[in-house]
Amino acid sequence: MRSVKASVFDIIVERGALKGDSACRILDFEGRKCLLVSTPSVYRLYGETVRRHLAERDCLLDVLILEMGEGRKFMPAVLEVAERAQRVGLDRRGIVVALGGGVVGDVVSFAASMIRRGIGHVRIPTTLMAQIDAAIGIKGGVNFNRHKNFLGCFHPPEAVLVDPNLLRSLPVDAIRQGMAEIVKIAMIRDVRLFELLEQHGETLIGTRFGQPAGIAEEVVVRAIDGMVAELSSNPYEDATLERHVDLGHMISPLLEVRSNYQLHHGEAVAVDLAYTSCIANDIGHLDDTGLLRVLALLRRLGLPTDHEFLDEELALTAFTATERHRGGTLNLPVPTGIGTCGFVRRRDELPEGIVTRTLARLAASADLLADADRLVVV
Amino acid sequence: MRSVKASVFDIIVERGALKGDSACRILDFEGRKCLLVSTPSVYRLYGETVRRHLAERDCLLDVLILEMGEGRKFMPAVLEVAERAQRVGLDRRGIVVALGGGVVGDVVSFAASMIRRGIGHVRIPTTLMAQIDAAIGIKGGVNFNRHKNFLGCFHPPEAVLVDPNLLRSLPVDAIRQGMAEIVKIAMIRDVRLFELLEQHGETLIGTRFGQPAGIAEEVVVRAIDGMVAELSSNPYEDATLERHVDLGHMISPLLEVRSNYQLHHGEAVAVDLAYTSCIANDIGHLDDTGLLRVLALLRRLGLPTDHEFLDEELALTAFTATERHRGGTLNLPVPTGIGTCGFVRRRDELPEGIVTRTLARLAASADLLADADRLVVV
Repeated sequence: MRSVKASVFDIIVERGALKGDSACRILDFEGRKCLLVSTPSVYRLYGETVRRHLAERDCLLDVLILEMGEGRKFMPAVLEVAERAQRVGLDRRGIVVALGGGVVGDVVSFAASMIRRGIGHVRIPTTLMAQIDAAIGIKGGVNFNRHKNFLGCFHPPEAVLVDPNLLRSLPVDAIRQGMAEIVKIAMIRDVRLFELLEQHGETLIGTRFGQPAGIAEEVVVRAIDGMVAELSSNPYEDATLERHVDLGHMISPLLEVRSNYQLHHGEAVAVDLAYTSCIANDIGHLDDTGLLRVLALLRRLGLPTDHEFLDEELALTAFTATERHRGGTLNLPVPTGIGTCGFVRRRDELPEGIVTRTLARLAASADLLADADRLVVV
Repeated sequence: MRSVKASVFDIIVERGALKGDSACRILDFEGRKCLLVSTPSVYRLYGETVRRHLAERDCLLDVLILEMGEGRKFMPAVLEVAERAQRVGLDRRGIVVALGGGVVGDVVSFAASMIRRGIGHVRIPTTLMAQIDAAIGIKGGVNFNRHKNFLGCFHPPEAVLVDPNLLRSLPVDAIRQGMAEIVKIAMIRDVRLFELLEQHGETLIGTRFGQPAGIAEEVVVRAIDGMVAELSSNPYEDATLERHVDLGHMISPLLEVRSNYQLHHGEAVAVDLAYTSCIANDIGHLDDTGLLRVLALLRRLGLPTDHEFLDEELALTAFTATERHRGGTLNLPVPTGIGTCGFVRRRDELPEGIVTRTLARLAASADLLADADRLVVV
């Protein structure tokens, strides 16, 4: 068992936690009542276990099963949670338990933040993406019209339960998506994590984090540790608009929106990581070897490094949207090596023609990657 | 000019502030952009003044005029603000300016709390109720189904501009509503304020806080000071569930809901103050003179002390709803004299039959008040 202290709440990382003592402890609300929220497919797999934990402690008021997904991460889902909470009389000490992927967590956090001006919630993330990214942090929110996460909150959960065993039921592609965020964290601050992915990434994906034993847990814990460390100095994003964890999140939101949320977040982040690494290389922040290692790793993990929608118009629009989102300045995190990260603060610090050049290089990245395959030593 | 420091934001109290330097200062957002939200009737009176202040400083992105009122204090109004903010590109440093009564403030605060996970807002309250109560504090929210303020937030404004001159355009009845919350604050903690209301309340209402000169400002400032003092020790309502400012707010929310929001908040609070004072008298917390002074003051201010919907069923339902809202215990603030306040923590501390007795006494309060009129010395 591994417990990561995230300043305001505990994150339990433990294989088998959901069926063991950790779940019993975290789900013992001591007289408080809860509403369990999940999706049909997740509830089929794990709902009964969680329901039993809660019912045995007389903490369960009701279960709400909602169809979720990025395309349903909108206000009506939040209001459905609120509606049910109201109907079953969840009181001010009440808790909403989110059992599911990132979208369930985002919707539940946002709903919990507004019900009676804020009640408690607990997250049990069931996807890799949620376990190492979405559930680690204090944000909730939904898309609004064509703008990703336009409405949302900062609302810390009371606890997060991360059980890598839950990943065994995921499609391999879902594991791959989550890997993109692990690559991001490794690029920002953890060269050892990057090397683990280079050496074991394909095995981890293929076995859904079942193998190699020990390594799978180390990767999850390092990824979570990295996220917690990055977030803890600036949890409300008001201390600074320079956030390393924004790496991979400049063009990716727009790519997702333009694809009408058909492109998965992880794939979009992978394309963005490749794109941003090319930018970093162009301006001399990331050397050729570093760039090749990033592109090669993404490719080995089966993640995309380019996308048909990524053209000059989208790239420039993304720059502008990012500037607006980050308070008027670009504050673009760029890799300065494997495991280190800097910032391009203003767009005018970038040389002319860099977007055109970068897009051309990404399109030609097959050649780069052929070189890269020779470079990476396993 | 009087500035009340409310720990996280400034409250400017100044007659003529809206047309003077205070507004210029508070509405100078120094390069940040804002969306001005108001109602048709308020905008007709004061919109142009505020719009000009903002436009001259190049801070104005757009104006949104919404029909408001307790019956429209629901999620669609919040989403209309969000929609407009999105359409005009209000960025993360953006500000929403609420020009209007309590409902405009509540809706704008809630919208601002969720737009981009929280942007700034400034309140310019235009009713007495908003100036001394709704705008003082950090809450926003809306009704959800038949539950008042079921959804909401804690989201401090950046500043509040209180100009008593704005009250001159209000109907006398609207002034009367706000008086109920001033009576509440006086009962909780300010015997001098209570005496000012006894002596000048009718004049203040009749002249819409134009006369007596000096007294009007003193009443507004004392009421705001009292609110700020009460709120500042427990701004997020998580330090304790014993809140003096909950006085007058046990049966009143239910009365409002049952009347389908036709009964105004201030009238409902007045009925609740009378009801709770009877309870306090019944259990020996408030002596007969104190009870009579409360009932007499409410009556002199033209506020109700009873209501046709207030019956045993409603009273008992309100007890239960209050317990649920306050985390399972009643925590009912009750006057222990004029200007002091205690708590009844659990319902079982109350003697049997108290609700029936209290309702009977309220119904017979005309007799009590006949006595009271002899008692009060002007």
